[in-house]
Amino acid sequence: MTEIDPLSLARDLIRCPSVTPADAGALDVLERALSALGFTCTRLPFEDVDNLFASIGTGEPHLCFAGHTDVVPPGDEGDWSAPPFDAIVHDGMLWGRGASDMKGAIAAFAAAASRAIKTGAVKGTLSFLITGDEEGPALHGTKKALNWLREQNISLSHCIVGEPSNPDAMGDMVKVGRRGSINCWLTVTGKQGHVAYPHRAQNPVPALMRKLLFLSETPLDAGYERFQPSSLQVTDIHIGNPAHNVIPAKATARFNIRFNPTWTGASIQEWLKDKLDHLANETGLAYELDCVVSGEAFLTTDTNFLNLIADCVEDKTGRRPELSTSGGTSDARFIKDYAPVAEFGLVGATMHQTDEHVAVSDITTLTEIYEALITKYYERFPAA
Amino acid sequence: MTEIDPLSLARDLIRCPSVTPADAGALDVLERALSALGFTCTRLPFEDVDNLFASIGTGEPHLCFAGHTDVVPPGDEGDWSAPPFDAIVHDGMLWGRGASDMKGAIAAFAAAASRAIKTGAVKGTLSFLITGDEEGPALHGTKKALNWLREQNISLSHCIVGEPSNPDAMGDMVKVGRRGSINCWLTVTGKQGHVAYPHRAQNPVPALMRKLLFLSETPLDAGYERFQPSSLQVTDIHIGNPAHNVIPAKATARFNIRFNPTWTGASIQEWLKDKLDHLANETGLAYELDCVVSGEAFLTTDTNFLNLIADCVEDKTGRRPELSTSGGTSDARFIKDYAPVAEFGLVGATMHQTDEHVAVSDITTLTEIYEALITKYYERFPAA
Ligand SMILES: [Zn+2]
Ligand SMILES: [Zn+2]
Repeated sequence: MTEIDPLSLARDLIRCPSVTPADAGALDVLERALSALGFTCTRLPFEDVDNLFASIGTGEPHLCFAGHTDVVPPGDEGDWSAPPFDAIVHDGMLWGRGASDMKGAIAAFAAAASRAIKTGAVKGTLSFLITGDEEGPALHGTKKALNWLREQNISLSHCIVGEPSNPDAMGDMVKVGRRGSINCWLTVTGKQGHVAYPHRAQNPVPALMRKLLFLSETPLDAGYERFQPSSLQVTDIHIGNPAHNVIPAKATARFNIRFNPTWTGASIQEWLKDKLDHLANETGLAYELDCVVSGEAFLTTDTNFLNLIADCVEDKTGRRPELSTSGGTSDARFIKDYAPVAEFGLVGATMHQTDEHVAVSDITTLTEIYEALITKYYERFPAA
Repeated sequence: MTEIDPLSLARDLIRCPSVTPADAGALDVLERALSALGFTCTRLPFEDVDNLFASIGTGEPHLCFAGHTDVVPPGDEGDWSAPPFDAIVHDGMLWGRGASDMKGAIAAFAAAASRAIKTGAVKGTLSFLITGDEEGPALHGTKKALNWLREQNISLSHCIVGEPSNPDAMGDMVKVGRRGSINCWLTVTGKQGHVAYPHRAQNPVPALMRKLLFLSETPLDAGYERFQPSSLQVTDIHIGNPAHNVIPAKATARFNIRFNPTWTGASIQEWLKDKLDHLANETGLAYELDCVVSGEAFLTTDTNFLNLIADCVEDKTGRRPELSTSGGTSDARFIKDYAPVAEFGLVGATMHQTDEHVAVSDITTLTEIYEALITKYYERFPAA
C-alpha cells in the first residue's frame, strides 16, 4: 500500500483553483489519494457545491477529520510574489492560496492516515468529511453532509477540524469552541420634517443613537469559562437622506453580537427586545428589530479528547497548546451537534491574504501530530 | 397713467413657467408693467440668471420691494386639479405655481405702486429688486444685485420682502428676522477590523454617536428676544459598510444647526470644536469637522418700520400680526446687511405644493396693505 507524501498532495490540491463554489478538480485529487488507501468514497453534491465523505474501517469509535477544499479568492494575482495556484516551494515555504487554509492540513491528515492504516492503528472507523462550501455561504456543505450522515445512520464519535488554529507557530492553540454570532437590524421610525421646524418633526436619529449606545455599553455578561465577555459591535448605520434641510423619517443600524454559551441566539433576542421596549417607552418612537442568528455558541467539554489532542501537539512541538474559543466561526458550529469537536491545523498568520504560505516543516510536524492522534485515539477510546 | 390690476398681472406672471433658473418671460411681463408706470428698469443678468432692478423717484427715503419671479418645479402636472401654469380663477381662488410664492405679492405691490404714484405719495425713491434665483442656489440673484446697487452708490432705506409670511390667514405674521443656518459634516476615524476581534479594532461608531448625542443634548442657548433656542438636528449618518463581520474604519454624520443672533456661523464653529476636542480626548479617536454656513442670523430692530407694517396690516385685516422669526431662510438674509428688512406677503399654506393657490380677496387685501404702507412710509420717514 502506498504512503501519501503530504507536501506533494498539498501542492496537487493547491494547483486546483477551487475558489468557492468551484471545485476545479480538488475533490477528485483527494478522492484518488484516499481510494488508493482503501477508503470508500461518496460524493455528496448539493446544489452547486460538491462534497466528499470517505471512510475506512467499521464500527466505533469513529474519528472524523473535517475540512474544506474551497478557498477564498486570490484577489489581484499581480500582487502575489508567485502565482497563487502554482504551489511554489521556495525558502522552505509552500506558497499558494489554500496552503494554510486548509489544503495543507487535508494533505497532512491524508498522509497521517496512510501511515496509521499501514501500522494497523485504525481500530474502528476513520473518515474524511470534506466540503467545497466553507468559505462561501456554507449552506450546501458540511451542514447538509452531516444531515446525510444521520440519514445513513452513520454516527461520529469525535471530530477534528483542520482549520489553521495556530496564530503564529505550531503548538500555539487548539480551538475548543466558538462564540455564537447574530446580526441585527434596528430601525427607529420618527416623523419627517424641515430642520427649521423641529417641533413639527420627530428625529429618529437621536433615539436610535441612544438605543445603540445603551445596548453597546450594557455588559451582556462577564465571560464564561474559556470565553471572553460577549460583545456588541455596530457595523453600519443607514439613513440615506440627501436633503440638508430635512429631518429624516427613519434610521437603521446594523450590529453584530458575538456571544458566549451563556446565551443562545433566542435568549439574546429576548434580552434585546426587553432593553429596547424599555427605551421605546422613554422616547415614544417605534422601533423594529430583525435578527439573523448565524451560529450558536458552543464549548467542547470532552476533556479526554481535548487532552489527547493537546498531548499529541505537545509531544511533537514541545509546547502545550492553549485551549481557546477565540476567533470567527467555522464548520465546527455545525459538527458540535453531532460529536465533540476541536480544531487543530497549520499556522493561520497568512490565511486569506496575498502570499499565503506555510512552512514545509510545519506540514511535516502536523502530519506527525495527526498520525500520533489517530494512533492514540483508538487506544484511548476503545469500542464500548 | 394706467393703474395696474393685481389679479391680471399675477395671472400673466404665473403663465410664464419660470422654474429656477428659467425666466420664461416673467421679468419681461413685470418690466413692461413697471415701465408703463414710469419706472427706470435695469436688467441684471448674472451667469444663467436674470434679475431686475426698477426704480422711480429720487433721493431718500428709498423703500425697496424685494422678491423673486422664479418658482419651484410643479412636480407631476397630472397631480394638479388644473394645469399649474394656466392661472385659473375658480371658487374665488387663483390657482397655479407661484400664486402664493410669490407672483401674487409682486403683482399686489406693483398695483399698490401704481395707485401710490397716481396720488403723488412717493416722496423719495420706490424700487423693485426682483430675482430669478431665490428658489435655486441663490448665488446669482439678490446677493449679486445688492452688490451691484452698492457699486452704483444706490442705498436702500428700508426693504419689504413679499414672501408668503402668513401661515394660515392674512394678518397672521410679519417676519422680522431669521435664524442662521449651518451644515456640518463630522467624521470619526477608528481602525477597521473583524467583529470577532473587537480589541484589535477601534469602532468609530460609538464615539461618533456619543459626540452627536452630546452636541444635540447640550443647549446652545435659551432663546434670544423673538427667537426660540438654537437647535441642532442630525440629518444623516453615513458609514457604507456592506460587510456584516467588519468593524468600519470611519463614520460620518451630517447635522444642521439653526441658530439665533446669540451666535454667528463662526462662533458656532468655535463652540463645536471646543466640545469635540474635549470629547476627542476622552475617546482617543480623531475627528474631522467641516462646516458650511448658509446664512447668518439676524433680527430687524427698527421698531418704527416694523410698527408701520403692523399698523397697515391691522388697518386692513383687523388683526395685529405677530412679529416672528420662525421658518426657513429667504433672501432677507442678504438684504439685512444693506437695510432694515421685513417680510410680508400672502398666505403660504399651499406654497411649494400641488394645487398652490391663494384667495383672490387676499390679493386685493394685500394690495391695499401695500398701498397704505407706501403712502404712510414717506410720511413717517421723511428725507433727513
Ligand atoms: Zn478555513
Ligand atoms: Zn419664495
